[in-house]
Amino acid sequence: MAKKWQTKITLNTKEETYIRGYPLTQMIGKLTFSESIYLLLKGELPTENEKRMFDAIFTSVIDHGVAPPSVVALRNVISGGNQLHVGVAAGVLAFGEYHGGALEDAMKFFQEYAKDEEDIYGLAERIAKKAVEEKWRISGYGHKFYKDFDPRSKKLLDLAKELGFYGKHCEFAVSLEDAIEKIKGKKLVLNVDGAIAAITSDMGFDYRLGKGFFIIGRIPGLVAHAFEELTEGVIFRRLDEETEIEYLGNPPREL
Amino acid sequence: MAKKWQTKITLNTKEETYIRGYPLTQMIGKLTFSESIYLLLKGELPTENEKRMFDAIFTSVIDHGVAPPSVVALRNVISGGNQLHVGVAAGVLAFGEYHGGALEDAMKFFQEYAKDEEDIYGLAERIAKKAVEEKWRISGYGHKFYKDFDPRSKKLLDLAKELGFYGKHCEFAVSLEDAIEKIKGKKLVLNVDGAIAAITSDMGFDYRLGKGFFIIGRIPGLVAHAFEELTEGVIFRRLDEETEIEYLGNPPREL
Amino acid sequence: MAKKWQTKITLNTKEETYIRGYPLTQMIGKLTFSESIYLLLKGELPTENEKRMFDAIFTSVIDHGVAPPSVVALRNVISGGNQLHVGVAAGVLAFGEYHGGALEDAMKFFQEYAKDEEDIYGLAERIAKKAVEEKWRISGYGHKFYKDFDPRSKKLLDLAKELGFYGKHCEFAVSLEDAIEKIKGKKLVLNVDGAIAAITSDMGFDYRLGKGFFIIGRIPGLVAHAFEELTEGVIFRRLDEETEIEYLGNPPREL
Amino acid sequence: MAKKWQTKITLNTKEETYIRGYPLTQMIGKLTFSESIYLLLKGELPTENEKRMFDAIFTSVIDHGVAPPSVVALRNVISGGNQLHVGVAAGVLAFGEYHGGALEDAMKFFQEYAKDEEDIYGLAERIAKKAVEEKWRISGYGHKFYKDFDPRSKKLLDLAKELGFYGKHCEFAVSLEDAIEKIKGKKLVLNVDGAIAAITSDMGFDYRLGKGFFIIGRIPGLVAHAFEELTEGVIFRRLDEETEIEYLGNPPREL
Repeated sequence: MAKKWQTKITLNTKEETYIRGYPLTQMIGKLTFSESIYLLLKGELPTENEKRMFDAIFTSVIDHGVAPPSVVALRNVISGGNQLHVGVAAGVLAFGEYHGGALEDAMKFFQEYAKDEEDIYGLAERIAKKAVEEKWRISGYGHKFYKDFDPRSKKLLDLAKELGFYGKHCEFAVSLEDAIEKIKGKKLVLNVDGAIAAITSDMGFDYRLGKGFFIIGRIPGLVAHAFEELTEGVIFRRLDEETEIEYLGNPPREL
Repeated sequence: MAKKWQTKITLNTKEETYIRGYPLTQMIGKLTFSESIYLLLKGELPTENEKRMFDAIFTSVIDHGVAPPSVVALRNVISGGNQLHVGVAAGVLAFGEYHGGALEDAMKFFQEYAKDEEDIYGLAERIAKKAVEEKWRISGYGHKFYKDFDPRSKKLLDLAKELGFYGKHCEFAVSLEDAIEKIKGKKLVLNVDGAIAAITSDMGFDYRLGKGFFIIGRIPGLVAHAFEELTEGVIFRRLDEETEIEYLGNPPREL
Repeated sequence: MAKKWQTKITLNTKEETYIRGYPLTQMIGKLTFSESIYLLLKGELPTENEKRMFDAIFTSVIDHGVAPPSVVALRNVISGGNQLHVGVAAGVLAFGEYHGGALEDAMKFFQEYAKDEEDIYGLAERIAKKAVEEKWRISGYGHKFYKDFDPRSKKLLDLAKELGFYGKHCEFAVSLEDAIEKIKGKKLVLNVDGAIAAITSDMGFDYRLGKGFFIIGRIPGLVAHAFEELTEGVIFRRLDEETEIEYLGNPPREL
Repeated sequence: MAKKWQTKITLNTKEETYIRGYPLTQMIGKLTFSESIYLLLKGELPTENEKRMFDAIFTSVIDHGVAPPSVVALRNVISGGNQLHVGVAAGVLAFGEYHGGALEDAMKFFQEYAKDEEDIYGLAERIAKKAVEEKWRISGYGHKFYKDFDPRSKKLLDLAKELGFYGKHCEFAVSLEDAIEKIKGKKLVLNVDGAIAAITSDMGFDYRLGKGFFIIGRIPGLVAHAFEELTEGVIFRRLDEETEIEYLGNPPREL
């Protein structure tokens, strides 16, 4: 009879744990964390360049301060009197469509259009035209402050070129930025989510893993904030009823 | 061979679901929600009075507005682009030691001391003396605004008297409030968590279920806030870097 | 300046909490739990019939045993060494598209088609034809064991008729079941999710609240399972490597 | 007026994000992921040896297959119809006292005893005696299968020696293993949690961060399992009522 669970990831025996076939005890001390992550996600060991690209990608999203909804959720959960891991989980929950979701959506978009296309520049022009006409909201483009270029995207794409991961998806991502600028006369900046999406696509990853890159990279940030809230934070944070909340509902009435 | 899972709660057959032995299809239309909850938690059907007490308890904690950490966490998670149930789960995560936890701690405290005690008033005096001397922080007592009495506690305890649930635990809870006032000359108010803890103890519930009463009662509030945030809320809420966050770390430096 | 948060649900002052305008201290002891829930979700007090319908709806989904993914997730989380509320939150997380999601999808479907339609039977025939031809998977229909009718749906719909909530949406839901049977010659049973979806639609609720009905009704079940796992469960549940897991990945190899 | 939030971790300006003072755009491409994590958690850049130690620690816990409660919870949540990040969060929730918690507890234990002690071997003998007499359950010791030594601990401790992190805490951890063996005549193996706890203590980390090391290291494993469940898993996993669940409650009865 078939067993209830199937997996291709890890084999546990009484003596050893095998990650994608490699003994864990051989990995310890020999592989960097990025190499181990690559092996786990891709099933094979990375080259030196793949490892370096992974290091850059995870570093690029490692933290973004207290402001984002993930950290506010996390710190509120900790301040309710919870342990570190419970706060971190609440932070991960906030990674929805608008918080890390662009990475996945952009991967899907790039892979859908660029994967089997020969004429990337022609494609970019066609898509740009359509996108402007139909007012698409394209995931991976646009930034609140960066209007000329996103310096994190530039760093990542320069590195991708140097390391050999600047393929069709990156070309399409950048060409689309240019094509839109030509049509609209102003730039819609390829942001860091978009850059990571293009590069991981060129590295051969499935778009359904997209959010995973963001989660792995950002977790250390969540852990750091959870630790800070636990050790120096506030017990039972609460909004100030008078200055922060506006009540717009039914006025007081008798039952 | 023993099966992997054991349960005393619910039996599913192909024809029927039995909750503590009663057919679910017989329960629908015959039992109120509070009666069904009581049956599920206690294993037997409630009396009319037990049902009424449950209705009052759950109603007393049904919502407390936007301010508490559970709702702030929930709304931030929804604003990250998540579905209703994900936000509600984040809200539940916030119910830690300082957020609903007092109910459980107070139940434990009341049951530990009052359960097998004959002289409740003497007990209250001894504990009050010790608590004041050793500066205990007693769960279920104290309130930010109510300094004379908590009107919700009064309502619940009056009802408990009327319905026959004002036993040893309630007597101890109230006597302790009095005894502390005598010693300190000022009141340490028995709050709503404390009142519910005393009453549910007199209803015969295990203190380890304490948080459960709070969760069941507050969930409709979380659902209402999640719905409001989904339909009228803000996409990607974020703190304002300039007015809300103070950076106290290392000043900018070169790598 | 506009305040950061707006809400129509609850107003907190130093003296009182007002739920949709009504003082919480007046609600305690006067309203049943279902009445309080209705007030919170709808903004107004329910009639006697609305209250009874709510009691039946929440009771109908209150628990479904150990088997569903929500309870398995919850019990595994508790068995990792966690508190009751953390387990309950994990259970709520499992309420995705395939677990309670049908209720919301069915509400959307019924409201989209039936809301402004005069000829409900004609509509049902048209939709049934299209659904069979295009092999739609219609949310709220179909059941693993019930092939003739779902007894929970029958109970709820009979009650809806008696209480005056059997309107266009219920008529459409039932007519569609009939129309499909006529075309296919076999029944596609309107299940409990579908019945609740039709009734709550006729009660005037927004489909985006759909999952909320399921969550509120099922939470007592999750609490009961969390309590049972905490008090009688297993520490660190784990699958049996030999009998339950099949490893299909790369065979062991040297690094 | 003091701002509502304080942090020492990250500063965001309109032009740049500074992690512990260092510009993020300078970090990308220059730091490995482990270096960035170290900087984030410790506040300063790691030495070459600190980086290598981190790589080994995170790799040593990167995955442990389908069996643990975190992965079972995660996969059940995904199978309920949820997105990748929701499943990962459920997995993190399972990291309670018995699942990664030993790491934190062992750090606390080692730091409490060994931090300011001169005579580590004498200490180990005293504690071992007491522990055996009073039947302590010491976190970080004991393993289901490894009875002689845990090969992962050996790898990590050998590396700690080579890299200069084998200080008081490691000495105490190993001496305690020896001292217990002398008294009981059989080994209580220092497991991988215990080894990591000793090493990170010698690296100068606060024990309250302990669970964080486990979370950061294990997240890639959770992501890999979530991706596998999403792409090759089962919709609505459920236990088999007949073979897996034993009902021990009230037999069916009439309402």
